[in-house]
Amino acid sequence: MSGPLEGLRVLDFTWFLAGPYATMVLADLGADVVKVEAPGTGDPTRKVAPFCGDLSSYFLSVNRGKRSICLDLRRPEDRRAALRLAEKADVLVENFTPGRMAEWGFDYSSVSTKNPRLIYASCSGFGQDGPRSREPAFDGIIQALAGTMSITGHPGSEPVRVGFSVADVGAALYLTVGILAALQARHVTGMGQYLEVSLLDAQVSMLENAFSRYFATGEIPQPSGSRHPQVAPFQAFPTRDGYLVVSAGTQEQWELLCDALHRSDLKKDNRFADFVARQVHVSDLEKELFPIFRAASTSDWLQLLPKLGIPCAPIQNIAEAAADPQVLARNMIVELEDPLAGKVRIVNSPLRFSQTAVNASRSAPRLGSSKKEVLDEWLSEN
Amino acid sequence: MSGPLEGLRVLDFTWFLAGPYATMVLADLGADVVKVEAPGTGDPTRKVAPFCGDLSSYFLSVNRGKRSICLDLRRPEDRRAALRLAEKADVLVENFTPGRMAEWGFDYSSVSTKNPRLIYASCSGFGQDGPRSREPAFDGIIQALAGTMSITGHPGSEPVRVGFSVADVGAALYLTVGILAALQARHVTGMGQYLEVSLLDAQVSMLENAFSRYFATGEIPQPSGSRHPQVAPFQAFPTRDGYLVVSAGTQEQWELLCDALHRSDLKKDNRFADFVARQVHVSDLEKELFPIFRAASTSDWLQLLPKLGIPCAPIQNIAEAAADPQVLARNMIVELEDPLAGKVRIVNSPLRFSQTAVNASRSAPRLGSSKKEVLDEWLSEN
Repeated sequence: MSGPLEGLRVLDFTWFLAGPYATMVLADLGADVVKVEAPGTGDPTRKVAPFCGDLSSYFLSVNRGKRSICLDLRRPEDRRAALRLAEKADVLVENFTPGRMAEWGFDYSSVSTKNPRLIYASCSGFGQDGPRSREPAFDGIIQALAGTMSITGHPGSEPVRVGFSVADVGAALYLTVGILAALQARHVTGMGQYLEVSLLDAQVSMLENAFSRYFATGEIPQPSGSRHPQVAPFQAFPTRDGYLVVSAGTQEQWELLCDALHRSDLKKDNRFADFVARQVHVSDLEKELFPIFRAASTSDWLQLLPKLGIPCAPIQNIAEAAADPQVLARNMIVELEDPLAGKVRIVNSPLRFSQTAVNASRSAPRLGSSKKEVLDEWLSEN
Repeated sequence: MSGPLEGLRVLDFTWFLAGPYATMVLADLGADVVKVEAPGTGDPTRKVAPFCGDLSSYFLSVNRGKRSICLDLRRPEDRRAALRLAEKADVLVENFTPGRMAEWGFDYSSVSTKNPRLIYASCSGFGQDGPRSREPAFDGIIQALAGTMSITGHPGSEPVRVGFSVADVGAALYLTVGILAALQARHVTGMGQYLEVSLLDAQVSMLENAFSRYFATGEIPQPSGSRHPQVAPFQAFPTRDGYLVVSAGTQEQWELLCDALHRSDLKKDNRFADFVARQVHVSDLEKELFPIFRAASTSDWLQLLPKLGIPCAPIQNIAEAAADPQVLARNMIVELEDPLAGKVRIVNSPLRFSQTAVNASRSAPRLGSSKKEVLDEWLSEN
């Protein structure tokens, strides 16, 4: 087999980011993903700048490897076609505001009677129930509500959003986990089921460590700049010409660091004896280490510390990350050939399997371009 | 069945965060997760503050629902016991620095000869190959290298780390996806396989949008405070007494917002006509909107805007998020009963299934507490 999900049919009613990212992961893994879009406009991210030729780079990146058909679920004949496709699908994914699919007669109870083996997966901002269920939400709203923004940044600074759509992407990955777990259950029970994830719940789950600290102590976690809240030293240090991030995550690495900095005395300093002590005395620790790191350049430190087994890194921008030898050696930047936009570079799937290939090499579809092909293929069997 | 992964046996050689978070997700979904720990010390996070009684809240939170046995893979009799368990396992997960499992004779080629149906999943900082493969890494290192820190924060500010371990958690979710995809492939081929994810690759994948913008334009993405890099208005606005995050993610929401702010004229302003125009003129847009939002309090805005269909939110801290009515209605905060620590609050799984329960209700194990029980159960079959 090529991808591990080869043969899996996914009927994809997703738009924006969280839903499309999930079905992108499924497509990369070999699933046959058919994106159902509104006639005329399609996924609104088709219009988000910047563009590769006429094509949105945003849309291209997260919709690679899918096919597109246009159906208007408000029109009876289109709804009938969609239902026939849902009868042939293994998985249906949607991320409309809760209630919308039911308005179109396309909620789980309507569709599962036709196909009880169907796994029907919903992603929404707030979830299918609860007081805010029917409100639309986007990543920024969720980063604000879940506490993400409250622990990101420097104390007292203006609000900081995580620089990428972490609430969308996190919910997408959880949704994918849920779909595949339901698929495993189907091998046992023979039956599909409904599953759902909200951006808010997924984000709270990803912050579990901040919540568990708060529950244990009653102290509200605060933003801590570049510092890890519980492990030290684990932060950015200013050097002569920039910054160096150092993460001494184990006791052994802490001791190696002391030796490397010619400060073996710190190993015997009770303030810095273990994880707990170093965290309590992190300001004292900074006072000891700041002058040392400032005395040399970032590249000097990078020549010295990694070979001694001490994890450290420069702060790379996106261009530097895209040219990083490790990133390139891992084939994380790949080139698609798009009929309209030409060669398009995208980020690859991070999954590597010994027996099944991961494939992020097909471009994203033109709006509605595969309608006949998909209907012929999926509906030809009976 | 109870959880969708009921009956799935996971032999868990993970420590710190990325590996344990992945096996936590599997345990929440009903898998039987047996954590193999080093005698005497166990997972180093057992010693990370703060504590619930004598138990690390960090360890408790991500190791709930697992059982623990102590085995020292350097000792032949322990290695034999581990190999016998691996013969009975469906999945083996480890996140040691690459090469370490092979030193112990426990790499995939050694184990798969005994159990070709085994899915063997590795998570590491840099991956199993490439120039930096053998280097240890932690979340902070990966946030620095992948570009995450370069796009998070305010322009010119000191470095900002995403306030939670997003590189660990993201890799954990991708690893879980990989394991479940390999499980699906096993239903087709009858064979297990090896799969791996690196923190660096997973983080780069989660930043796909920043990379695709860079590839499309050649412009290096910069930190943008609370602003979304491509959609506007989608940021925090200062109010009379705090901040309000507003995300007008669709054209309809933009128009509703203009009406709600009594600035219907902005709908006809060419600078703000669509996604692309508003992004190009985001500074002008801020000039128009800042004085309006400053004129009322955050709670005034929250009373007005959501009912008009405009996504907005206050910036909640972790205590506020833990008490949020939607978070509580969704049962996202649950209480474990731990024999030693008593009642412990943790964050629940965000996955909701119609037919299979998700269960985050068992506490984390005492070091080595289930050795006899696990050996009896898993090895009794032949």
